[in-house]
Amino acid sequence: MPPHSGSDHPAIGIVGLTAWGLGLALTYARAGNNVLLLARESGEADELGERRSHRRLPGATLPDGVCVSVPERSRARELTALILAVPSQQMRENLRRLAPLLGRETAIVSAAKGLELETRLRMTQVIEEELNPGFSPAALSGPNLVPEIVAGLPAAAVLASEDPAVAARLQALLSTPRLRLYTSPDVAGVEIGGSLKNVIALAAGMCEGLGYGNNATAALITRGLAEIVRLGVCMGAEAQTFSGLSGLGDLMATCSSPLSRNHRAGKLLAEGLSVGEVERGIGEVVEGISTTAAAYELSREHCVDMPITEQLYCVLYRQLSPRKAALALLDRALTPELRS
Amino acid sequence: MPPHSGSDHPAIGIVGLTAWGLGLALTYARAGNNVLLLARESGEADELGERRSHRRLPGATLPDGVCVSVPERSRARELTALILAVPSQQMRENLRRLAPLLGRETAIVSAAKGLELETRLRMTQVIEEELNPGFSPAALSGPNLVPEIVAGLPAAAVLASEDPAVAARLQALLSTPRLRLYTSPDVAGVEIGGSLKNVIALAAGMCEGLGYGNNATAALITRGLAEIVRLGVCMGAEAQTFSGLSGLGDLMATCSSPLSRNHRAGKLLAEGLSVGEVERGIGEVVEGISTTAAAYELSREHCVDMPITEQLYCVLYRQLSPRKAALALLDRALTPELRS
Repeated sequence: MPPHSGSDHPAIGIVGLTAWGLGLALTYARAGNNVLLLARESGEADELGERRSHRRLPGATLPDGVCVSVPERSRARELTALILAVPSQQMRENLRRLAPLLGRETAIVSAAKGLELETRLRMTQVIEEELNPGFSPAALSGPNLVPEIVAGLPAAAVLASEDPAVAARLQALLSTPRLRLYTSPDVAGVEIGGSLKNVIALAAGMCEGLGYGNNATAALITRGLAEIVRLGVCMGAEAQTFSGLSGLGDLMATCSSPLSRNHRAGKLLAEGLSVGEVERGIGEVVEGISTTAAAYELSREHCVDMPITEQLYCVLYRQLSPRKAALALLDRALTPELRS
Repeated sequence: MPPHSGSDHPAIGIVGLTAWGLGLALTYARAGNNVLLLARESGEADELGERRSHRRLPGATLPDGVCVSVPERSRARELTALILAVPSQQMRENLRRLAPLLGRETAIVSAAKGLELETRLRMTQVIEEELNPGFSPAALSGPNLVPEIVAGLPAAAVLASEDPAVAARLQALLSTPRLRLYTSPDVAGVEIGGSLKNVIALAAGMCEGLGYGNNATAALITRGLAEIVRLGVCMGAEAQTFSGLSGLGDLMATCSSPLSRNHRAGKLLAEGLSVGEVERGIGEVVEGISTTAAAYELSREHCVDMPITEQLYCVLYRQLSPRKAALALLDRALTPELRS
């Protein structure tokens, strides 16, 4: 990574006009950085560059420090770090477009919380396949509800990289007074925790939407975290990573807040909306929907028992009624099979 | 334990007209059991026996299966199991009164979530000191918000006993279709998890009351569980117990529900109320207040770093302002010292 220059040239680039991409651009610009925010099309880049506001950032104005562009028009090659905040299923196509435009000196960070449906790969694995990065790619994950970040409330997240030197340099570059980062060498654990918590958030939202209370939902979430850990360990993660901010912490924020898209989506499923209607109702990608399919396939591949993921898979892809699924989910959650 | 007789004589006794004592009496009577509910004074026993309603059970009526009495007037000696649902600081005096009235065939179960302030003992340790029970005492703990239990919503909890045979027999006796129990041999872990989560719930309520969002609160709770585990392991508990219903599960329900007394108490502290005013405002014992003092002493005794417990202790007992404490708490929670 080149040293963070004192010039006007942005050291931090962000790809994606998602809520999180916009939120991160705001965060780093507010902390005094020049930020390069990369959109997919020049039309939307120009519009945002001029209007400085976006429907995914209600009430907020993009600070002057944010320069909006598209990859081909930008000086992406000179960035110290590039954060990818695109939907997981669009990660690969974004990387293919960026590949010829990036230098080997730029550290690549995934801020996407999902798995690639077709390959079931984690985002940093997709990055390694598509780019030839000079440094091991990093993952950024944690309890970061975007509306709270935009409102200036404090938060923390994990910056994971297999290379401790990269992790330390990214921690220094990407920590702000309002978004504290701590490092972890367990990239797999951080990415799996961040992705699979959305499956549990969908299930918890569904149970809540059906009128089960906090007691039953707490039992469900407890069992949900246990099944994430079971799969994660089979995929090479450390069990204790899931007790940290990117596992338990993110699950706690996602399941206790009406601001969470995945949690809201679960409630809409409970109301009888179809998957398509839910996605249209939320108005943004609901990562948990594709992650559920990927996690279901992974559970079969690794022979791991994941009853909550399985029931949710049947609701999303096999027309099982949410009420029947919730009864089965709670039945499992209320009689934990491993310990009774 | 004598076999559960088919006669009218109650097999299950419950001590304490606390919300949880009343909720348990209701639960077991609804499931078809005759229940002996023991009050402190004959006046209140007679009144409840006649009116069949209680201010701590809003909207609910005590089923006919519940017989209300006082220990000296009852046939407590013939009970199969006696559940103590009294405030933790009153456990010892209750046991001293009950001691001459109990037979060695009755299994004793603590449903209290706290530590004795003066001795820092867990409730089953107090039971062992005061009674000469024929069986190792058991602990019942989990995400069991009483208003939801009273409303008939499903829940699960852990029944812990060092003796697997006692645990299995109590599981069979005390499980109902709406309150599923699973067993654990880790009595210390279950009791410490159930007690100390109230400290974290107070801290989380305080941060929420001060306007910090779900991101920061999730970080705080994550660090809170980590400090409970650190102390618990020093006190002989198994780390993984805290990832189950009596640790993570209970913390999740307590911190995400406005029904939790300890969580509400934290919010009132944030509003500037004194400890006395908070207890009067809640109208029932707030276990987390005395547990914070016990946990603080234990952390010093075992040389365990418990920053959240320490800050809360200073608010409750050393006149530290909630805002200053919250800033220090979040500062610690947002930069986890063990991993950065």
